Amino acid sequence: MTRKEVSKAVLKRLPGYLAYLKTIQDNVHPYISATALANALGMGEVQVRKDLAMVSDGGRPKIGYLRESLIDDIEQFLGYDNTTDAVLIGAGKLGRALCGYSGFDDYGLNILAAFDTEPVAEFTEEGTPIYHIDQLQSFCKSNKVLMGIITVPAQHAQEACDQLIRCGIKAVWSFATSHLDVPDGILVQYENMATSLAVLSMHLQAQIKEKK
Amino acid sequence: MTRKEVSKAVLKRLPGYLAYLKTIQDNVHPYISATALANALGMGEVQVRKDLAMVSDGGRPKIGYLRESLIDDIEQFLGYDNTTDAVLIGAGKLGRALCGYSGFDDYGLNILAAFDTEPVAEFTEEGTPIYHIDQLQSFCKSNKVLMGIITVPAQHAQEACDQLIRCGIKAVWSFATSHLDVPDGILVQYENMATSLAVLSMHLQAQIKEKK
Repeated sequence: MTRKEVSKAVLKRLPGYLAYLKTIQDNVHPYISATALANALGMGEVQVRKDLAMVSDGGRPKIGYLRESLIDDIEQFLGYDNTTDAVLIGAGKLGRALCGYSGFDDYGLNILAAFDTEPVAEFTEEGTPIYHIDQLQSFCKSNKVLMGIITVPAQHAQEACDQLIRCGIKAVWSFATSHLDVPDGILVQYENMATSLAVLSMHLQAQIKEKK
Repeated sequence: MTRKEVSKAVLKRLPGYLAYLKTIQDNVHPYISATALANALGMGEVQVRKDLAMVSDGGRPKIGYLRESLIDDIEQFLGYDNTTDAVLIGAGKLGRALCGYSGFDDYGLNILAAFDTEPVAEFTEEGTPIYHIDQLQSFCKSNKVLMGIITVPAQHAQEACDQLIRCGIKAVWSFATSHLDVPDGILVQYENMATSLAVLSMHLQAQIKEKK
């Protein structure tokens, strides 16, 4: 179907639909309606109906969507059916943990290699190669990599980001706590676990204080 | 110092300052000014000055902050100096990876145990115990746990969240893609890596299309 402009709010909901659809047993009814999906996930029916209509044109009145086709449509829409190759800069604890996280396979993400200014090993425990940062340029070129993951400390993140962009990276996933300046056409997504933990911890402190 | 109300924007920046301060060699000048910190991180001086004043009263005009004290003040403010014990529900790939991620030590997070409706092993690879979900209540009570981490699929997340709250959890860190309804006094922080990946992947698809 023709690709429509889609909001981030919709993008946030699609992985949830997908995860649910995948858990339904194969031997049940092959069709699922927006209503059934909305009920199962405790969401509004109108919203689910609209979201599904945006990613799939396989919905039939009073019957719903063929589950398998809907899964394919959502995966295609989210790009999960194409494997995205990525490189990672910063082979510290977090970087190595991400390299070893097999769950990314489900989202079509494939971390080809990690790079570091001071590689402490040749491979991560799970076998992802760790190269010196000097090899980034040639690696990205020969593997046509478009996505880069940043897991260096905040003060080195901009430098890492600039290096990635010079190597032709168009999408950056940053786990560093600092803001990154990028030219037009480059997208940065921030994942800030330290902030989340700080917010949660602050809430707990306030709760404990209240009790006293 | 007296605790001031602090915005999420400030909380987002504090871990970055902390990470930078910790990388400075011990043998250099023991003081650091807001200006020096701002320059090092490529941030606005006024903002850094305000942020630091909010968490520490150790700043001296024209001299700055004693670096070690500033680190302590930020850590105390963020609650990193108190260890927060947490339980995790959903011992799948992501859950087990989080249990094994040693980087959480730096933020004072300690995952005591993982729980699952169908535990596949007694321990994670790194040695965190995995218990049946039926043991959650007694475990949380006897260990006085206040933070819960949710790594179950979206359609089970609300149920997991309700269980945690019944066990006395006050702060929930959710890696599931669905929205969670919670009573007043409970804080939920969402970490949605699937969404980030979908957004990045969508951007790359658009880029590739443009090129063709």
